[in-house]
Amino acid sequence: MTSYKNPALSIEERVQDLLAQMTLDEKVGQLIQLFGWRTFTKNEDGTVTLTEEFKEDIRQGKIGSLYATLRADPWTEVTLETGLSPAEGAAALNDIQRFVIEHSRLGIPLMFGEECSHGHMAIGATVYPVPLLAASTWNPALYQQMCEAVAIETRSQGGVATYSPVLDIVRDPRWGRTEETYGEDPYLAGELAAAAVIGLQGKGLDSPDTVIATLKHFVGYGASEGGRNAAPVHMGMKELHEIDLVPFRKAIEAGAISVMTAYNEIDGVPCTSSEYLLDDVLRQQWGFDGFIITDASAMNMLVHGYNVAETGEKATALSLQAGIDLEMSGYMFGKYLKSALEQGIAQEAHLDQAVSRLLKVKFQLGLFDQPYVDPERAARVIHSPEHIELAREVARQGIILLKNEASALPLQPSSTGKIAVIGPNANKPYNQLGDYTSPQPVGKVITVLEGLRQKLGADSDQLLYAPGCRIKDDSREGFDLALDTAKQADTVILVLGGSSARDFGEGTIDLRTGQSLVHDSEESDMECGEGIDRSNLNLTGVQLELCQQIYALGKKLIVIYINGRPVAEPWIDEYADAIIEAWYPGQEGGHALAEILYGDVNPSGRLTISVPRHVGQLPVYYNSKRTRGKRYLEMDLQPAYAFGHGLSYTTFAYDVPVVTPVVIAPDEHAQVSVQITNTGEVAGWEVVQLYLTDLFSSVTRPEKELKGFQKVFLQPGETTTVTFTLTPEHLELVTSQLDRIVEPGDFHIQVGSNSVEGQVVTLTVR
Amino acid sequence: MTSYKNPALSIEERVQDLLAQMTLDEKVGQLIQLFGWRTFTKNEDGTVTLTEEFKEDIRQGKIGSLYATLRADPWTEVTLETGLSPAEGAAALNDIQRFVIEHSRLGIPLMFGEECSHGHMAIGATVYPVPLLAASTWNPALYQQMCEAVAIETRSQGGVATYSPVLDIVRDPRWGRTEETYGEDPYLAGELAAAAVIGLQGKGLDSPDTVIATLKHFVGYGASEGGRNAAPVHMGMKELHEIDLVPFRKAIEAGAISVMTAYNEIDGVPCTSSEYLLDDVLRQQWGFDGFIITDASAMNMLVHGYNVAETGEKATALSLQAGIDLEMSGYMFGKYLKSALEQGIAQEAHLDQAVSRLLKVKFQLGLFDQPYVDPERAARVIHSPEHIELAREVARQGIILLKNEASALPLQPSSTGKIAVIGPNANKPYNQLGDYTSPQPVGKVITVLEGLRQKLGADSDQLLYAPGCRIKDDSREGFDLALDTAKQADTVILVLGGSSARDFGEGTIDLRTGQSLVHDSEESDMECGEGIDRSNLNLTGVQLELCQQIYALGKKLIVIYINGRPVAEPWIDEYADAIIEAWYPGQEGGHALAEILYGDVNPSGRLTISVPRHVGQLPVYYNSKRTRGKRYLEMDLQPAYAFGHGLSYTTFAYDVPVVTPVVIAPDEHAQVSVQITNTGEVAGWEVVQLYLTDLFSSVTRPEKELKGFQKVFLQPGETTTVTFTLTPEHLELVTSQLDRIVEPGDFHIQVGSNSVEGQVVTLTVR
Repeated sequence: MTSYKNPALSIEERVQDLLAQMTLDEKVGQLIQLFGWRTFTKNEDGTVTLTEEFKEDIRQGKIGSLYATLRADPWTEVTLETGLSPAEGAAALNDIQRFVIEHSRLGIPLMFGEECSHGHMAIGATVYPVPLLAASTWNPALYQQMCEAVAIETRSQGGVATYSPVLDIVRDPRWGRTEETYGEDPYLAGELAAAAVIGLQGKGLDSPDTVIATLKHFVGYGASEGGRNAAPVHMGMKELHEIDLVPFRKAIEAGAISVMTAYNEIDGVPCTSSEYLLDDVLRQQWGFDGFIITDASAMNMLVHGYNVAETGEKATALSLQAGIDLEMSGYMFGKYLKSALEQGIAQEAHLDQAVSRLLKVKFQLGLFDQPYVDPERAARVIHSPEHIELAREVARQGIILLKNEASALPLQPSSTGKIAVIGPNANKPYNQLGDYTSPQPVGKVITVLEGLRQKLGADSDQLLYAPGCRIKDDSREGFDLALDTAKQADTVILVLGGSSARDFGEGTIDLRTGQSLVHDSEESDMECGEGIDRSNLNLTGVQLELCQQIYALGKKLIVIYINGRPVAEPWIDEYADAIIEAWYPGQEGGHALAEILYGDVNPSGRLTISVPRHVGQLPVYYNSKRTRGKRYLEMDLQPAYAFGHGLSYTTFAYDVPVVTPVVIAPDEHAQVSVQITNTGEVAGWEVVQLYLTDLFSSVTRPEKELKGFQKVFLQPGETTTVTFTLTPEHLELVTSQLDRIVEPGDFHIQVGSNSVEGQVVTLTVR
Repeated sequence: MTSYKNPALSIEERVQDLLAQMTLDEKVGQLIQLFGWRTFTKNEDGTVTLTEEFKEDIRQGKIGSLYATLRADPWTEVTLETGLSPAEGAAALNDIQRFVIEHSRLGIPLMFGEECSHGHMAIGATVYPVPLLAASTWNPALYQQMCEAVAIETRSQGGVATYSPVLDIVRDPRWGRTEETYGEDPYLAGELAAAAVIGLQGKGLDSPDTVIATLKHFVGYGASEGGRNAAPVHMGMKELHEIDLVPFRKAIEAGAISVMTAYNEIDGVPCTSSEYLLDDVLRQQWGFDGFIITDASAMNMLVHGYNVAETGEKATALSLQAGIDLEMSGYMFGKYLKSALEQGIAQEAHLDQAVSRLLKVKFQLGLFDQPYVDPERAARVIHSPEHIELAREVARQGIILLKNEASALPLQPSSTGKIAVIGPNANKPYNQLGDYTSPQPVGKVITVLEGLRQKLGADSDQLLYAPGCRIKDDSREGFDLALDTAKQADTVILVLGGSSARDFGEGTIDLRTGQSLVHDSEESDMECGEGIDRSNLNLTGVQLELCQQIYALGKKLIVIYINGRPVAEPWIDEYADAIIEAWYPGQEGGHALAEILYGDVNPSGRLTISVPRHVGQLPVYYNSKRTRGKRYLEMDLQPAYAFGHGLSYTTFAYDVPVVTPVVIAPDEHAQVSVQITNTGEVAGWEVVQLYLTDLFSSVTRPEKELKGFQKVFLQPGETTTVTFTLTPEHLELVTSQLDRIVEPGDFHIQVGSNSVEGQVVTLTVR
């Protein structure tokens, strides 16, 4: 059988055979992706009925891919009631795929892309902490496991691509999507990017446990003007290559199959039509041979917003020529590409190339040969005990102890007396999940209050609770209850922060009683997430005031932030006894926090983003140039908490690192070894961090750059040796001609617990 | 006489002859500039005695130039007592020059460079408003007159170069040097830059009335990270060419002789060692044939800060090779250049080129032929009545009426009753002068209080005064007096803002009595100026609180800001009856403000920089891209006051503009004519502004770009026609390859009173 259907042929042969049989319409159809959740209606028995419109499109070969077919959230209007269970979802995707295979002329299977950056955004899936917390673990191996689990849950239902990982380097935390990123460092992001790709794709695309990793947003999206989502990026090409492009390159070296373009422009060129970025850098320089997808509606912006294309035809032609292969959930390719080809402004050779790339991946996924999944397996693997435990472990390792005055933490169950758990994020499930989250049944998400209840068990009558206030509004009607509650306790755990919760109908809390009420959309908590950028970094609403009034009671005050971007609240930094940054810790967050509060888990999260002291201090990032300045009139440039910072319940002592050899050639390696001892009373993880300083270079370099880290677990008194290998990749700079080279000279190597402190030794490159 | 001393020879011949006679030391010496005020001591009779060290340096040919020989300020520690009068200063420079000519081997005259961006920074000179106010006049012809006057005052004392104009485009008003710039728009800056160059140099360098214009800071200095002085610039090359380089190009086209490099780096390359900027762009592309000077100590930063040079030798070699000809007040060339040449890392050909450029300018200045000035003339022209009047006229035309609710202004002398003049800037002379200002004798600077006193003359007993508070400190001890004073009045003129005043020993004001006291340096007002960047844009100290307490009294409240960067105070925007932005209006500011307050002068200043509503809203600039975003959680992106905004006491009606022809070829011109009528009751200036929108373009462009403006004076009922010519230069864009081209397509032309409103017509390029 010399046909694309013959599994014995090579993928290349099958692609060429199939391509040769395709009409222009069918080719264009492969570049088109529809909103998947709109293609069917759910029947009472949990099966689905495909819409007539969708079936007609399929018969005509008009569609190549579906976006977020199982996505459930207020935007898709899919709820716990109207959505599909894991097994139902798997069956539905099978039904869709079966219709495609059986009713389209060539039977080209669909590619199902899903949202699953921290868990599949479908009913029933495990909700992991957001990427900012996952990054804060400084544990790529653990994150890789999380990504594997996410892939298993997604692929088990038929999803074959995820629109993650997000590799944007955040330069301005006003940006609402900060929570979706790994933070501010390109090296750390690169290590995590590789872990994500291996976790998602590592077992091979045709495995039932993998999904395609989509690297996004290519590129510069985390450096937009004013932290405004999708606003222009002002950046030189050298900086782009040494900062923002780095994690993408590492992820492509790790085998990533797909890249999504960023909404933003860089220096006047929209990423979605940038031949330089998509073709020169990605394909020619890096050898990327996967496919490139736009962000949703990004191609429309070429006409409306960027105004680089007068017509839809021109926009599709520009995108196709630049290297776009697939349009995410848009209508531009469908509406305009054929006429662009007919008008001769787009070229069929480029179309064939895009189609070939997409077909190749479909063959690699095995979709032609094994198009269906097993719904029973989906029911089994999704939200499995192992995955729930993994969600908790990530939270345990990523939650950060920012301050711990006079060992305020851990709490001693025996001696703490009553504990008041107060604050708008103490018992609000959706507020701890972050953006890109699906509806959750009652009881699945463990809040701080619930985590402490379960932790204390029989002693949970020690716990008192009051919400105090809401995230955003100015009502103080809950202050009385909160203060009365706090007065009865010895310790107050005040859970403040933000929320990326969309309007899930969760219900707002009656501040006077602490009871949940019917939802009132006027009182949304949402102050973070995609499209919610802020012009301030302080706590919203009356949260600070609540904190100050509680502080005045003189109780031990533990502040927990649950939020998606750094909080700048110097008053709390000064007066709270302890501060924990939990980001959005996911469904198991309350358990992890309870374990940390009581010392069952020794905190080991470290900041991957600097915490500024005021929005007017921005930009604040550790790897800035030496000439960044010294101070403003009102404050210096030091952050409230530095990159890499995070406390432990134990202490670690570092010996002076040893470099071997101390002099190397530019193409040689060196090893840096350091002995670390747990000098405290309890076991704990330490994140050993290595920072490089190039003393002199032909172009300017950051004062410090993270170039290595290892997370090690040490028993009290235990000593271990951590060894880093420095290769040319760690030492190299990017020249003004955008070449990566190692220059001779001296390098300072700082090894320590964070970006500020450490022992320094010298490596010389001759 | 075939010698460089022969005026009959061409300058080229003289330069070559002289160069051929110079030793290596003498050549290096020409590249060296010393702090001029340190070269002598003042004698009791007002003459000067040169220091022995300086004389020895001169004998050895070690110095080519002196920096700011007549500069008087707290930094130089030259005071009214220790400084030189205009005639003494002229005589001193003659003495220095005479020593050089008579005691150095070749008698090469020194080049005296002085600070005079808004008046010569010497004792006795006229103090004009700062450039930000001069720009706000939108009157390049008037600004050109001001620059002519500055040149006359400077050259009359022997100064032959000024370290102005400042052409930096401000992207972040946290920057303390915002006051020194023309604001945020490259086109407006370009027009003013050309006016400055013509005003300073236009009569020919050998005229007794001109000084060399030094364009600074080349380049990008107004776009530094976080508004921090000299911090790195993150910018693509295309943006650099279409924004920051524009005013420099215009000024060089106007004939500017000198350029100063910026402290900052752009995308990893320090401007001071950027061969691309200094050689490729400036000299090769633009044909600049003057000389390039570093900023003070900028070359040191190549070793300490940028770390692109391990040694001083390397730093000097890099700079020389990039195109630096003269080091401002530094020691690097003097200490390291000779050994760099001897080591072969710098080349004597480059040195010869730099020396030739400097000698050429000295010949052009006529210094070899007419090295001395006339001290009597200096005494006559400096601070002449004409110059004082000019300082007042610039202030009149540049002060901006931001808000005027219910025609709160102008005040009616007959009906206003008592007037309380309150606020830390109501009667503080140095606070209204801006940075780069010399000591001023009592009575020379007209404050708002003094201006009103003189304005009201016999009626000045209507005036009450209280300082209320200081600029920065938190003392409320003046509130009682201020409130008591305000209570007695019908109208309160509240003069708030900032200060760039260095520690001139002016004395702080006793807040309880309103009397000046001996200076207490703990209570400095300085919150602006070079090196004083801010992390907030609100009023410092308790100024807002003072305003709120006065507002509560229910009086008519007129707020005047005297300051150097936009103020973000939404409360005042909402509640004050009228708001005037006076920037730093110079020595005549109080007169100009009194005239405006009473309607003798109809305000006609227009903002050249957007006024944001909060520091967290930055960046805010009118010519941003369409994709800049829509809003933050807390606020949208609209400024409090837009670029081009400024009210008048009259009203103007615009007809629809007429474009002729409506279709042009890319290389053709079009004319845009519009009729404007003064539809109000009083005469006044209108600033007719033309903004261009390129509907579609191959690269993205700003939503609007200023491309023309004309200031016209109209009597009540008078109509005039204003005509703009649009040339390819107005229509062009900068491609990603950095070419300037006009692309076919439609352009919208908006003509009106500011950047927001206007009549729109279309021009088509085919």
